[in-house]
Amino acid sequence: MKVGFFQFAPKFGEIQHNLNAILKAIEEFSGDLLVFPELAFSGYQFVGKAEVEELAQDAGSSRVFQTIQEALHGRSLHVVLGFAERADGCLYNSAMLLGPRGPIGTYRKTHLFFEETFWFAPGNTGFQVWDIGVAKIGLMVCFDWFYPESARTLALKGADILCHPSNLVLPYCPDAMVTRCLENGVFAVTANRIGLEERGGKSPLRFIGMSEIVAPNGRILYRAQESDSQLYGCDIDVTQARKKRINPYNDLLKDRQPQWYKW
Amino acid sequence: MKVGFFQFAPKFGEIQHNLNAILKAIEEFSGDLLVFPELAFSGYQFVGKAEVEELAQDAGSSRVFQTIQEALHGRSLHVVLGFAERADGCLYNSAMLLGPRGPIGTYRKTHLFFEETFWFAPGNTGFQVWDIGVAKIGLMVCFDWFYPESARTLALKGADILCHPSNLVLPYCPDAMVTRCLENGVFAVTANRIGLEERGGKSPLRFIGMSEIVAPNGRILYRAQESDSQLYGCDIDVTQARKKRINPYNDLLKDRQPQWYKW
Repeated sequence: MKVGFFQFAPKFGEIQHNLNAILKAIEEFSGDLLVFPELAFSGYQFVGKAEVEELAQDAGSSRVFQTIQEALHGRSLHVVLGFAERADGCLYNSAMLLGPRGPIGTYRKTHLFFEETFWFAPGNTGFQVWDIGVAKIGLMVCFDWFYPESARTLALKGADILCHPSNLVLPYCPDAMVTRCLENGVFAVTANRIGLEERGGKSPLRFIGMSEIVAPNGRILYRAQESDSQLYGCDIDVTQARKKRINPYNDLLKDRQPQWYKW
Repeated sequence: MKVGFFQFAPKFGEIQHNLNAILKAIEEFSGDLLVFPELAFSGYQFVGKAEVEELAQDAGSSRVFQTIQEALHGRSLHVVLGFAERADGCLYNSAMLLGPRGPIGTYRKTHLFFEETFWFAPGNTGFQVWDIGVAKIGLMVCFDWFYPESARTLALKGADILCHPSNLVLPYCPDAMVTRCLENGVFAVTANRIGLEERGGKSPLRFIGMSEIVAPNGRILYRAQESDSQLYGCDIDVTQARKKRINPYNDLLKDRQPQWYKW
């Protein structure tokens, strides 16, 4: 199967502009799974909660998802998109998995970073894995990488591929995802954004790009540059994520010793 | 405080030779905590269980530990030593923490690698943390690094410094320890061995060296070469491992969301 990411710089608050960029990537990509950054429609650096409310989408009835749904019609492509979600009177930093036949699932970011704690409620979905036929897909969003429990939970629930929409500003994640893939024997597609956001007198945020696809053996199959937009895809053999026996005497997940773990 | 490691090539089966090298390092090192490799007295590549039984030490009555104890007398130095342990009719791949006033604790390796599963029983101590006054010390051995649960358990039990005797042959661990330190906000001292072992017609093992000291912010304070013996120490500010607040809105360990974790 072929997996990929779209690394770009969403324009803050310009939902139609960002949607157009996303639709163009969907149109151009030939493959099975395409991952987009966190908060791909709204931008990241909110200055107040009212702004988030204004830019948030309802997962079930949003026009942007209806438009994307139409673009997927008749294709075999699945996409993962980060978005600000409005639901049950709360706001979440979410990611949605959509396929040709409609929305498959929404994950709400568990580990909120920095001022996200002002606008968003901590996710109440937990980490979930969805089977799209060619692979089992686990979703995590940006700072979830920092907590090994995120990727581990997804692997224990059977994920072959971690789809990881991100808005990274710190430098550590791309290398850490190598460890996440090794320790769980899974693929990961981290779709990060690029560009600078400087809003309302706040410190400017420069996003680090470096979106990447990493294999279960820790090999970086591809890593993007720090400041270029890029639509990228490559073939992977998903069965590699199902061979948890790393040598004749060790099975990666079965050799865990939970009786000694404090979590 | 000053922490360090002794990277060397134990000679297989030559306990007195290896003990002499260890005693020399203890004599030369001026500092508070010195970490030695895994199986530092016996060597690594056993060809049969009888060999392990012959080379194993009893933690309470072994002459090697009595000799080391005498060398620590009147010093302020603590040491961590990997050794093959004989106890209760079993063999363990263990590490001992010793201070000037005697043995403090023994940890038995939880996650056995490859043919170690032939000779050793899985550790039955769990991950433990000992307070030596200047710092709280958590022990893990070699392949334990592969399981994020090891370092996480030690951090949740209050460890400031992970002491990590190793006999690494694969290339991944030195970089992965950066992630372990970041995600737990702790220091780590990985003491690896060097050299080649080729015994009983088995595939030769080349140990990768690259012993290192990593800070809670993921900075590699020092990394040794791949094939040189080295006694190394550096000053660290252990209070850095006690500041788990990584920005005004995030506390590394308190922000965990165990209700969503599967371990």
